Amino acid sequence: MIQHILNYLGIGAAAASGAVLGVRKGFDLFGIAAMAVVTGVGGGVLRDVLLAIDPPQSLQRWQDITVCLAAAALATLFARTVIRLHQPVTMLDAVGMGFFATSGAALAVDHGASWFAAALLGMVSALAGTIIRDVVARDVPVVMGPDDMYAVPAMLGSVIYVVIDYYGPQWVGVAVGSLVATLLRLAAITFHWRLPTGPRELIMRAHPPHPGP
Amino acid sequence: MIQHILNYLGIGAAAASGAVLGVRKGFDLFGIAAMAVVTGVGGGVLRDVLLAIDPPQSLQRWQDITVCLAAAALATLFARTVIRLHQPVTMLDAVGMGFFATSGAALAVDHGASWFAAALLGMVSALAGTIIRDVVARDVPVVMGPDDMYAVPAMLGSVIYVVIDYYGPQWVGVAVGSLVATLLRLAAITFHWRLPTGPRELIMRAHPPHPGP
Amino acid sequence: MIQHILNYLGIGAAAASGAVLGVRKGFDLFGIAAMAVVTGVGGGVLRDVLLAIDPPQSLQRWQDITVCLAAAALATLFARTVIRLHQPVTMLDAVGMGFFATSGAALAVDHGASWFAAALLGMVSALAGTIIRDVVARDVPVVMGPDDMYAVPAMLGSVIYVVIDYYGPQWVGVAVGSLVATLLRLAAITFHWRLPTGPRELIMRAHPPHPGP
Repeated sequence: MIQHILNYLGIGAAAASGAVLGVRKGFDLFGIAAMAVVTGVGGGVLRDVLLAIDPPQSLQRWQDITVCLAAAALATLFARTVIRLHQPVTMLDAVGMGFFATSGAALAVDHGASWFAAALLGMVSALAGTIIRDVVARDVPVVMGPDDMYAVPAMLGSVIYVVIDYYGPQWVGVAVGSLVATLLRLAAITFHWRLPTGPRELIMRAHPPHPGP
Repeated sequence: MIQHILNYLGIGAAAASGAVLGVRKGFDLFGIAAMAVVTGVGGGVLRDVLLAIDPPQSLQRWQDITVCLAAAALATLFARTVIRLHQPVTMLDAVGMGFFATSGAALAVDHGASWFAAALLGMVSALAGTIIRDVVARDVPVVMGPDDMYAVPAMLGSVIYVVIDYYGPQWVGVAVGSLVATLLRLAAITFHWRLPTGPRELIMRAHPPHPGP
Repeated sequence: MIQHILNYLGIGAAAASGAVLGVRKGFDLFGIAAMAVVTGVGGGVLRDVLLAIDPPQSLQRWQDITVCLAAAALATLFARTVIRLHQPVTMLDAVGMGFFATSGAALAVDHGASWFAAALLGMVSALAGTIIRDVVARDVPVVMGPDDMYAVPAMLGSVIYVVIDYYGPQWVGVAVGSLVATLLRLAAITFHWRLPTGPRELIMRAHPPHPGP
């Protein structure tokens, strides 16, 4: 029961972020809905493709995509509010991210993935949706940095899951891994914890400053 | 017989649009051919991956990609003409789009997809090629809007297919769904039917106007 | 034995190019590592997905991704040196590209692909990693041209492999195909062999020159 709530909550928060980006990019209603769907279920679909779960669960059942479409409708109707309420949406997204990182790893273990692959596929479940969202909208993927940490909490969550699953029951791994990932993400947002970049002077400027008249 | 003609016609029209975009982007002959191939068969390949048809039909057989390469050769040699004859190419593309939306859904049903997944996979077959084309060429995907409707006809076609297949023979669903999708797309081009965007004042400008000296 | 060395060498060189691009784009350490991983193993993972090898080998085993992470660490620590030593990195990459083009085709044949699909999947193995790298970093894919030939050597290598495999032993095809692909790529770098583009006056300028004050 609780895992269904976490699943729909995570999908809905991710879908809302996709829909808002679609609004910001000037997409039409189909484009906004499509952004919500690829962001909400993209990570899970890619995970299922890599695990040969065909057709992927999120496509085969109607519930996940319906949640995406509902989130898209709300995020479009109340776009101003959703943008202003950035913080609660980010917090819901952190909860969903933590849950996807561990539940994705658990599903991978159940489908014959190695421990190594399970940790990776947990990260894929948590991160791929937002990467696809940004690539389709022609933005640089935000999880690539140098913003507040997003990928490191997901990685930690799915590694913790794998370690606990090796020694004990699966649900403990999901619970502890999700909790740690979500709390670390919330701390990263609150305190602006960031990973360093490479040597700063090697960074190319995308848009060189206009030299002026 | 007729479904083979529609299939090659649709692949060829999509491939020509990919090749022309490659020409416009300054790609070399390989890049132009590659754009034609990913646009022409990308939707079908993604559908086959999601249905676990491995290797995907369009890669396993030589015909589809040969059609893409022929379309690329013609579109490159007569690029000026193809750009000027934009309208007939768009009309052929509308026929192909309608056929892919329904034939993709039919293939999905045959491979164990739910009705819901079949309607989605019909849309994927019809739309994913052009989305991949635009992402690789670093354009915002045109099907995301706010241009003349493209995705809505595809969605309607694949939903109509699924509804008819539920009650009657498959070929009626393909025929009626394709026809409705193609006619709606042609009407959308002719009358510039568009879906609304989200709130206009929230749209970010990609390239802020230069303030001037 | 030698194929393991070629495999890791190719993955490492590709991963280093991904990591350097991540550094240049200002990604954080996770983003740099992620770029190394998608560039190093992206082609192989896509090939495995198209062949229904699930989970893909590079995810299931820890070795390939560990090589990517080691290459990312070295390329980040010594980024200046790696950029200056552009030429040796490009040469190692040419060796890896040739090997992937033929070993990818061989794996495809072993998994039931047609000769046509095997040649295609060899190209996918050799090229898809760099295409994914550039798309995620929001660059136009370099293999699309109009730079020194990269894709044509890969295509030639995988076609040669397929032809030799049809008549003789697999390892001869891998050896000859890899050698020809690598040598042709090195010649293309040295002599700046390029494919022509489409009609030059049809090329759209991405960033129109500023008209000036």
